[in-house]
Amino acid sequence: MSHNTFGHLFRVTTWGESHGPALGCVVDGCPPGLGLSEADIQVWLDRRKPGQSRHVTQRREPDTVEILSGVFEGRTTGTPISLLIRNQDQRSRDYGEIATAFRPGHADYTYTAKYGLRDYRGGGRSSARETAARVAAGAVARKILDGVTIRGALTRIGAHGVERDRWDWDQTTENPFWSPDPVAADIWDQYLDEVRKSGSSVGAIVEVEATGLPAGWGAPLYGKLDSELASALMSINAAKGVEIGEGFAAAELSGEDNADQMRIGEDGLPVFLSNHAGGILGGISTGQPLVARVAFKPTSSILTPRQTINEAGEEVELRTKGRHDPCVGVRAVPVVEAMTACVLADAYLRHRGQNG
Amino acid sequence: MSHNTFGHLFRVTTWGESHGPALGCVVDGCPPGLGLSEADIQVWLDRRKPGQSRHVTQRREPDTVEILSGVFEGRTTGTPISLLIRNQDQRSRDYGEIATAFRPGHADYTYTAKYGLRDYRGGGRSSARETAARVAAGAVARKILDGVTIRGALTRIGAHGVERDRWDWDQTTENPFWSPDPVAADIWDQYLDEVRKSGSSVGAIVEVEATGLPAGWGAPLYGKLDSELASALMSINAAKGVEIGEGFAAAELSGEDNADQMRIGEDGLPVFLSNHAGGILGGISTGQPLVARVAFKPTSSILTPRQTINEAGEEVELRTKGRHDPCVGVRAVPVVEAMTACVLADAYLRHRGQNG
Amino acid sequence: MSHNTFGHLFRVTTWGESHGPALGCVVDGCPPGLGLSEADIQVWLDRRKPGQSRHVTQRREPDTVEILSGVFEGRTTGTPISLLIRNQDQRSRDYGEIATAFRPGHADYTYTAKYGLRDYRGGGRSSARETAARVAAGAVARKILDGVTIRGALTRIGAHGVERDRWDWDQTTENPFWSPDPVAADIWDQYLDEVRKSGSSVGAIVEVEATGLPAGWGAPLYGKLDSELASALMSINAAKGVEIGEGFAAAELSGEDNADQMRIGEDGLPVFLSNHAGGILGGISTGQPLVARVAFKPTSSILTPRQTINEAGEEVELRTKGRHDPCVGVRAVPVVEAMTACVLADAYLRHRGQNG
Amino acid sequence: MSHNTFGHLFRVTTWGESHGPALGCVVDGCPPGLGLSEADIQVWLDRRKPGQSRHVTQRREPDTVEILSGVFEGRTTGTPISLLIRNQDQRSRDYGEIATAFRPGHADYTYTAKYGLRDYRGGGRSSARETAARVAAGAVARKILDGVTIRGALTRIGAHGVERDRWDWDQTTENPFWSPDPVAADIWDQYLDEVRKSGSSVGAIVEVEATGLPAGWGAPLYGKLDSELASALMSINAAKGVEIGEGFAAAELSGEDNADQMRIGEDGLPVFLSNHAGGILGGISTGQPLVARVAFKPTSSILTPRQTINEAGEEVELRTKGRHDPCVGVRAVPVVEAMTACVLADAYLRHRGQNG
Repeated sequence: MSHNTFGHLFRVTTWGESHGPALGCVVDGCPPGLGLSEADIQVWLDRRKPGQSRHVTQRREPDTVEILSGVFEGRTTGTPISLLIRNQDQRSRDYGEIATAFRPGHADYTYTAKYGLRDYRGGGRSSARETAARVAAGAVARKILDGVTIRGALTRIGAHGVERDRWDWDQTTENPFWSPDPVAADIWDQYLDEVRKSGSSVGAIVEVEATGLPAGWGAPLYGKLDSELASALMSINAAKGVEIGEGFAAAELSGEDNADQMRIGEDGLPVFLSNHAGGILGGISTGQPLVARVAFKPTSSILTPRQTINEAGEEVELRTKGRHDPCVGVRAVPVVEAMTACVLADAYLRHRGQNG
Repeated sequence: MSHNTFGHLFRVTTWGESHGPALGCVVDGCPPGLGLSEADIQVWLDRRKPGQSRHVTQRREPDTVEILSGVFEGRTTGTPISLLIRNQDQRSRDYGEIATAFRPGHADYTYTAKYGLRDYRGGGRSSARETAARVAAGAVARKILDGVTIRGALTRIGAHGVERDRWDWDQTTENPFWSPDPVAADIWDQYLDEVRKSGSSVGAIVEVEATGLPAGWGAPLYGKLDSELASALMSINAAKGVEIGEGFAAAELSGEDNADQMRIGEDGLPVFLSNHAGGILGGISTGQPLVARVAFKPTSSILTPRQTINEAGEEVELRTKGRHDPCVGVRAVPVVEAMTACVLADAYLRHRGQNG
Repeated sequence: MSHNTFGHLFRVTTWGESHGPALGCVVDGCPPGLGLSEADIQVWLDRRKPGQSRHVTQRREPDTVEILSGVFEGRTTGTPISLLIRNQDQRSRDYGEIATAFRPGHADYTYTAKYGLRDYRGGGRSSARETAARVAAGAVARKILDGVTIRGALTRIGAHGVERDRWDWDQTTENPFWSPDPVAADIWDQYLDEVRKSGSSVGAIVEVEATGLPAGWGAPLYGKLDSELASALMSINAAKGVEIGEGFAAAELSGEDNADQMRIGEDGLPVFLSNHAGGILGGISTGQPLVARVAFKPTSSILTPRQTINEAGEEVELRTKGRHDPCVGVRAVPVVEAMTACVLADAYLRHRGQNG
Repeated sequence: MSHNTFGHLFRVTTWGESHGPALGCVVDGCPPGLGLSEADIQVWLDRRKPGQSRHVTQRREPDTVEILSGVFEGRTTGTPISLLIRNQDQRSRDYGEIATAFRPGHADYTYTAKYGLRDYRGGGRSSARETAARVAAGAVARKILDGVTIRGALTRIGAHGVERDRWDWDQTTENPFWSPDPVAADIWDQYLDEVRKSGSSVGAIVEVEATGLPAGWGAPLYGKLDSELASALMSINAAKGVEIGEGFAAAELSGEDNADQMRIGEDGLPVFLSNHAGGILGGISTGQPLVARVAFKPTSSILTPRQTINEAGEEVELRTKGRHDPCVGVRAVPVVEAMTACVLADAYLRHRGQNG
């Protein structure tokens, strides 16, 4: 219900603005007895943090997490886990036009329309800095998901997609783009340099896969696993589309082609001959790999002047200076993973609640 | 939270199986004093009901709605509105293999994996018949949304999409496909005949548009309007993807192209020069038309035999006889509209709650 | 969140008015595979139904329940269970003054103040008839609570309370008051005759006990078992107070007297030497019997004329004719039991969800 | 749903342990544009903080609140307000027996039974220190409740109650007990000295009153204002009973005596001739003063040795040394007020949402 809470039994409440003193989250409903340290969380935050290559924002944030509650002698106690991340690099500056003009394509206008005021410093609550809290929560969720592996990859930046034939998960940690395709990574390297130098930006697609989850998670009808994933992934900054398995391509398939036929494997368990469904049927996991994709729009924080208006109702031209990601999709990869982890942890606990 | 409840202040709980005595919903949180009759709801149910053309299931259901509570002397009282739709055409028959074998691509296997049993008659709870309850709830939601127009269209069946140049909303009621493009409708007419005759099925894409809503609905971050829409639309049977505005195409755009520039209109109000955002920025409505698309997979209830297994763990071949929609996307159009209406009604009431 | 939904994983949504065509509930989140028939529910409804002695309303309602969904071949499927109870004895009559005047002490005024209109027939949604739906839901909850026994007793009617020394649970089904004390039952029999004949009404106290539940159910801090019980029991019509264990008497105790000391029993398990806590410490069950009490006010539907006002803003005198319970507490006993069952079923599933 | 979240549109999530680095809360759903500073919150925290008289725990905590988010240039932005209170006086010491033995009447045993482990330092999550976060949230709630006055009083400590004839709200700030009766305060002063010196403890009753709220807040049936108050107040540490208006005394009243008759006042508005209902009918506010009472048990942290067991399953004797409130009810007064404020703020926003 809550605007800033996500999940049901495993619940995450995030808070904080881009240029406030701190941001963080409260993770409630975590099972007791799990080993959890700040280092366990930091490793995932480090994957997301800014300033790690020339292709992302040059804001310098260590994103150091503090556990303020819910852990005792290295184990979760079952009570709420409060996680705090101090903002360090809220570079003091004159916000100038940004303070009163609405960046086209940004939340500036809608926040003002809704609330009558907005924290204009770095985008306030609408800043992608909030996603650090999601990644921290996702680290806790992963602790619950013993045996489940969740990993993401960037499959497209603007005009350039990866080749499925070259897909290698191990490559995703070998380049600054989480690209599973080293050739695409090389192309993007040059391409994003151009984008950045021209003061422009570009969109992207992230794919996430979860393996090792059993059949039976998720629940009809408004708690379908795909519905919850769609909600979670679409809540990430700049997301404009979510698809599961074949996704939009399924619209062009025939029933024969789309059906994942089943056989009995050598171990006597069901085996699917394909995974068009992306691991979900009827809102419930099939036991196959869960596969989802998220489309991210290009950020509108660009140097090219755009026509807009300001709070006084005047027409102005605006160019957004500052330290921005030319492709927000790049740093979204760990966030997509984290949200997937949160959805799965919640689905697991709810399944266990109803079905034992 | 609840698996079968959708919404927050405007809440819909649906229940019922394909071949049980009835299905229905409880609509809670509706504002008092709204005029509401069974006829107001029936008009929308009639748009969805089966048997209206040769291209959809030939099951004959009048889908007559009864209001059992929450309305007094023709007006809503603010208490829960219970809506009941009797199932009529639960043709008694031998379910044969369907009772024990899992249709590939269906929820048969996952329901069994989750619950240990399933109501195999007509798909039970996983049947698209449940969407009648959604449409009934959507009719109530529309009553709340005075001034907002919500309308859907089919934009693709399998290989054949509509031409945007020929888009005419008035056409959507002139053909059995909700096609805004009469040429596409003619193509689909012949195409679906072939699909049906071959015992196959095919996917589709539905687009929905809502106009007349103000800027300010929706709420960051996990109650974003696009997040809630994604959740609602992905919960519809056979949905595999959801996108807002440019959606997946946004991944290929530059920031310059994607930003919706703003000017001041003749009435002194903000005007957007484009609508790549699909009417939502930062999770909050911009006041522009809200535009979303949903991809539907082809139903796997097909006559072509497919390899599968049964509850006894045996490998079998299965062909699904019976009365099925060769393209479930067709009858999904009123359902997509209804879910959009429910999301918007809830967003409106929540906005009014927080912001007055 | 919903106004007419109770519970979290085990969720009950009720609907219906006193003089509408029907009332009922949707029970969501029930574990699959439980044996459930209409007879299983009817037995509890029969305990609550009106017209069973001269001391309760003479409205004749069979309160026959129909299961419309969620059960297949005698077992719960894990999908929502829709329960329907037709209203039979909505005696058609002229509501006269009741239609426009506000009965003092009733919800007439507040419903009108809130909603601008009200269904005045028999109290509409505020009627105690709604509690039939609670009892039906409670019957489902009891199915989940294998090994837990929940039973209620009336401990006070007006000036006359039971003697603890004479407490015998078996007596509660031997008199029309659920009295555990046969002497009190005899006193009440005569006392309520006088109350009824004088056109008056009187309050009551109900005590409920649940045994057989393990230590560990409930959860700090806003999901404390006592907090949830208080919420559930206070939501019953005419309830004005709820207490757990010693309750208000605890205010007068010393820490020495109130502490339930512990020893190790012969089976090696913890044993408490007393149960001042009523089975709950820190919001979590101790494994001892859970004990709660609810105070019910006298109904204000009395024959004695009372000063009030009407919708036109005029001062009037009103006496409430019709078929009313002179002591609503009597028929509340099965309702208190049912709400306790719902709270415990939900607590059990949530505990299992978080803690396995 | 969440175990540590309270409320629906106005939502409070609390976190933190007695001897952790900090505690706090996230307040979500607050309307935008309200003036809010740390000083606005501190004034209420100062009323609750320990060490202010010899009758309460001598733990020294400044309970200084920091606003970490949700406020910009002195006004609420509509985004989550994160409030942080550092623990200062977590006196480092040997916890000795407390670490492994279960204090009778405490949550020690139930936390261990539920979670398998517990943070034994100062009671961990079950400590009354958590109520500081409630008071901070209540301060925000009060900002929303313009025109509503909420005030609490202690009406009983152990054997000694206040005299209603001497009730004077102004007195509540003139003594360390929030007593509205100066004579009772004098009696308590001496009485609590004795209790404390003997190493014992004693229970108490708190009464809270809210005036200035209109008719119409609250909602049937499971969101009744009294149901939500009961839930909120029963969630406070050591609470064992909640009653509204006449409460348990209503059980002994006749319908004639209990009904609050109505007249038209000089201003043409409804006037009630009494307030047995405590300001709530049918779960909805009447516009009269809302009156509730909460019973608190005596703390079991006493010096007198009590029989108990430890985690090893051994029988031991335990006396609880340390800095404890001999009467936890005293410092509960600001907490009861705060929870009442949170319930009312939520009811107000929800009413506005549904009813405009």
